[in-house]
Amino acid sequence: MPRTYTGESTLARAIRVLSAFEPDQPALSVSTIARRSQLHVATASRIVAELVAHGLLERGENREVRVGVRLWELASRASPTLSLHQAAMPYLSDIHAVVDHHVQLGVPDGDDVLFVERLSAKNAVINYSRIAGRLPLHASSSGHVLLAFGPQDQRERILRQPMKAYTAHTITDPAKLRDALDLVRRRGYALLPGHIHDDAAGLAVPVFDSLGKAIAALSIIGPNDDRLNAHVPLLLAAARGIRRALNPSATT
Amino acid sequence: MPRTYTGESTLARAIRVLSAFEPDQPALSVSTIARRSQLHVATASRIVAELVAHGLLERGENREVRVGVRLWELASRASPTLSLHQAAMPYLSDIHAVVDHHVQLGVPDGDDVLFVERLSAKNAVINYSRIAGRLPLHASSSGHVLLAFGPQDQRERILRQPMKAYTAHTITDPAKLRDALDLVRRRGYALLPGHIHDDAAGLAVPVFDSLGKAIAALSIIGPNDDRLNAHVPLLLAAARGIRRALNPSATT
Repeated sequence: MPRTYTGESTLARAIRVLSAFEPDQPALSVSTIARRSQLHVATASRIVAELVAHGLLERGENREVRVGVRLWELASRASPTLSLHQAAMPYLSDIHAVVDHHVQLGVPDGDDVLFVERLSAKNAVINYSRIAGRLPLHASSSGHVLLAFGPQDQRERILRQPMKAYTAHTITDPAKLRDALDLVRRRGYALLPGHIHDDAAGLAVPVFDSLGKAIAALSIIGPNDDRLNAHVPLLLAAARGIRRALNPSATT
Repeated sequence: MPRTYTGESTLARAIRVLSAFEPDQPALSVSTIARRSQLHVATASRIVAELVAHGLLERGENREVRVGVRLWELASRASPTLSLHQAAMPYLSDIHAVVDHHVQLGVPDGDDVLFVERLSAKNAVINYSRIAGRLPLHASSSGHVLLAFGPQDQRERILRQPMKAYTAHTITDPAKLRDALDLVRRRGYALLPGHIHDDAAGLAVPVFDSLGKAIAALSIIGPNDDRLNAHVPLLLAAARGIRRALNPSATT
């Protein structure tokens, strides 16, 4: 049976324990945690107990374990996306009030877009994304604007990798993706009908910071019926508002 | 110089490192982290390096360290407040669109209310709360509804403790707080003018789950000018909507 000899591996194991939790199954038994994190039950049990003692995990009914609000608090109160989130939320709220579609804010993280906020439409079309969910940069409208306006080395790296197809419309050919990203740069937005799900379309625009860096994508997800691009001016105006809110001293 | 002998203390130290970050100063040098977490610089440096390797912290300019989006993702994707957050956001958004005040969602955590979401008014009055910020249960309007509709043992415990005064209006006398909470229970809402700041008033209602448990407080913060209570029906209706959205199969 493995022992924990060094501090490093305890911390690594604790992170594996925290990584065992998924949105679809937020409460887990210690034995499930042990299996998912590939730890012995005794090791998992000891790490869970310490994480519970610090409030990072919480024990609920049937001794099942959940992520604790203390972990969320630690992660959120000094999060690098908190100022973005606070600047963007009034604009997401306004868009949501005006168009009855999902409204989302995503940031680049590795080869994915990570959705840090989402307001759901009441009459929802299918949408794979969710808060703290991810989609690959090559497949989603948010990803396309982050690729098109992001660093060239990242774009070239993605273009060299195999790309997963979600539907028959997902672009997986490097030359076609390059053309699509050129179009996004010329237009200033990405419109991807049916690239993630046949019945949904994504429309995304970049959010720039005061240095002109694309730090986020603002997107709406609606039915795949050719009407989404009517909202391009709304999204572009909101993205400008978010940039201004991030940097109140700027004049543009 | 202390050494890390057991797994427990490494994890505890890692949590102390993460706790060193504050909203007002999200990027810290390793020496500041060491000082705040009361660790030797070498120990702090080693723990920071491992947290960076796992993406829980990120190194920015000048080798300063920030909370990483990976930590936020781990905390958020299986957060116990995520379903509440997703159910509540459309209602917060609607309220925010209709009244130009701060709109907040808070959950009880220990003796505090922890604010898990907030939409800021464009013409803001002063407000101490923020996302991932806390206020004591005895002092804030959100805290009053959580105390009034929460477990009796918690209420009695708070009533026995010393209570901090934020302004001359903050209730710190146990008998007066008991009377105030009785009134909140009869009325169904808490209105606290000038209890946290002289120029602001808080109005809060409880959000119940399908079992009738008060799981959150929905609140607006506006100017201290006697007009906030006009919004009681709006908040009460939204709280009912959130309960329904949390439990779509219920009939009420």
